Amino acid sequence: MSKPIDFYFDFSSPYGYLASTQIEALAAKHNRAINWHPILLGAVFKVTGSQPLLSYPLKGDYAEHDFNRTAREKNIPYSMPDPFPVGTVALCRATYWAMEHDKSAVSSLAVPLIHAAYSAYYTNNRNIGEPETVMEIVKEVGLDADACAAACGTPEIKDRLRAANDTAIERGVFGSPMIFVDDEPFWGSDRLTQIDTWLERGGW
Amino acid sequence: MSKPIDFYFDFSSPYGYLASTQIEALAAKHNRAINWHPILLGAVFKVTGSQPLLSYPLKGDYAEHDFNRTAREKNIPYSMPDPFPVGTVALCRATYWAMEHDKSAVSSLAVPLIHAAYSAYYTNNRNIGEPETVMEIVKEVGLDADACAAACGTPEIKDRLRAANDTAIERGVFGSPMIFVDDEPFWGSDRLTQIDTWLERGGW
Repeated sequence: MSKPIDFYFDFSSPYGYLASTQIEALAAKHNRAINWHPILLGAVFKVTGSQPLLSYPLKGDYAEHDFNRTAREKNIPYSMPDPFPVGTVALCRATYWAMEHDKSAVSSLAVPLIHAAYSAYYTNNRNIGEPETVMEIVKEVGLDADACAAACGTPEIKDRLRAANDTAIERGVFGSPMIFVDDEPFWGSDRLTQIDTWLERGGW
Repeated sequence: MSKPIDFYFDFSSPYGYLASTQIEALAAKHNRAINWHPILLGAVFKVTGSQPLLSYPLKGDYAEHDFNRTAREKNIPYSMPDPFPVGTVALCRATYWAMEHDKSAVSSLAVPLIHAAYSAYYTNNRNIGEPETVMEIVKEVGLDADACAAACGTPEIKDRLRAANDTAIERGVFGSPMIFVDDEPFWGSDRLTQIDTWLERGGW
């Protein structure tokens, strides 16, 4: 099997959510796995000098319209959450814990956690910025919320998230989602068709 | 015939150029004409607080890579011009003159001028920011360069460009290309497939 596709995303990013519902089928079609990399766009924006999308005049209005339109086009359940955006430090830490340290299941529950958290925010307006809500979702997917909460306070997990942000920036990640096929970067949920073509042709 | 598609673009925008080579075939497929609206992104950026794309760390590097990649994917001739970006006030004014005032040809030479100018910049590295180069291209497509140069200094043509920028901002244009199908806005050369689907389905 070829190298997994690297999927960098911020849990608060609507385009990250939209792409997260499509990327697995696309990867499977080309016999690829996914490596999921939750990051904090806030850390990235310190380097790029960018602001949250909706804070830009004109562009923000378009984006809010486009989130809904793209979701409807692809039949992806979606409603704009409030508050938006939210900080997702706790959720990112919980996800890295689930990826690397949870021993409660035979196969990792990290990917179900990612989908459950995105869905909680973008279809049920649950505030994934709140650590309590994160731990509820952790529990709902069958993970040990107490073990997770304890681990998320440790320097090891804190460093894990920091390292993920740093690596993302080193690789040139400036937005969400940012998808690497081998080392080829693609930015945006609207590039999935281009990624499909890239994988089909083996690049160009 | 349905309402023409409104194509807003900055002559200095690579994605505007890439889309300009594709939009006519797409429009024709759906029995639509194109209304071309050259604008100055500089005027738009004063409202949105944005900067030229390549000035953003990380994002700028990606964009430069992506211009070439997207051109190769679609077999569009492309090379990164230098200097980049350039101011295109003279070229925009010449284009509006050609659209609305030139009487030298039976059918308008404004669209050939648009394609010739984009091609001059993105395939021959001619500096379309220089009024002399603009007038050379005006002449090459068969327009009266002297009449054009004289007209471009008049308040009427200056106002025409200002009005185009103002209207663009009123309609929510914040980047290039920005394409309106009826009143539905689509941003970016990577949305042509979505526009195709929109036109096919009659929206959703």
